[in-house]
Amino acid sequence: MYKATIAITLRPSILDPEGKTVHNALTNLGYESVEQVRMGTRAELWIEADTEERAREIATDACEELLANPVTENFEITIEEGRPDAAPAA
Amino acid sequence: MYKATIAITLRPSILDPEGKTVHNALTNLGYESVEQVRMGTRAELWIEADTEERAREIATDACEELLANPVTENFEITIEEGRPDAAPAA
Repeated sequence: MYKATIAITLRPSILDPEGKTVHNALTNLGYESVEQVRMGTRAELWIEADTEERAREIATDACEELLANPVTENFEITIEEGRPDAAPAA
Repeated sequence: MYKATIAITLRPSILDPEGKTVHNALTNLGYESVEQVRMGTRAELWIEADTEERAREIATDACEELLANPVTENFEITIEEGRPDAAPAA
């Protein structure tokens, strides 16, 4: 079992209103040394696969097909061995 | 100038309906080897600070005061030297 941690970020040329809002809020709270904020998404996928390479392929396909918007977003995948924490039934 | 990359994740005991929805969507698309999904937030802050330790302090304070919900979320901060990409004026 592998854990894929996926960082999905807006491409630098894309405006980030959420980051701008967080930046304004931090400035209002006195964090004047924070000069820019960009917000993104983080996804953790636990994947049953035989090899790390196979887990990376599955995670890449999932990003391209569902998780990331290829026009506006970049993604970066980190793979490690790992099982999910005991999670609440849902 | 330092770049703080902040991973904000739901605590394992907290239900994650967004992750559940993404998991269902992936299963419907045929990704049956994906066994669990947890979604989270990623924030990038560019901080003007004299030292890496000071940048980490500022990022930690920003998480505790604004970015993360201390009841439901954990956060993890990575600091590196870096300047923002040329971003669109906003």
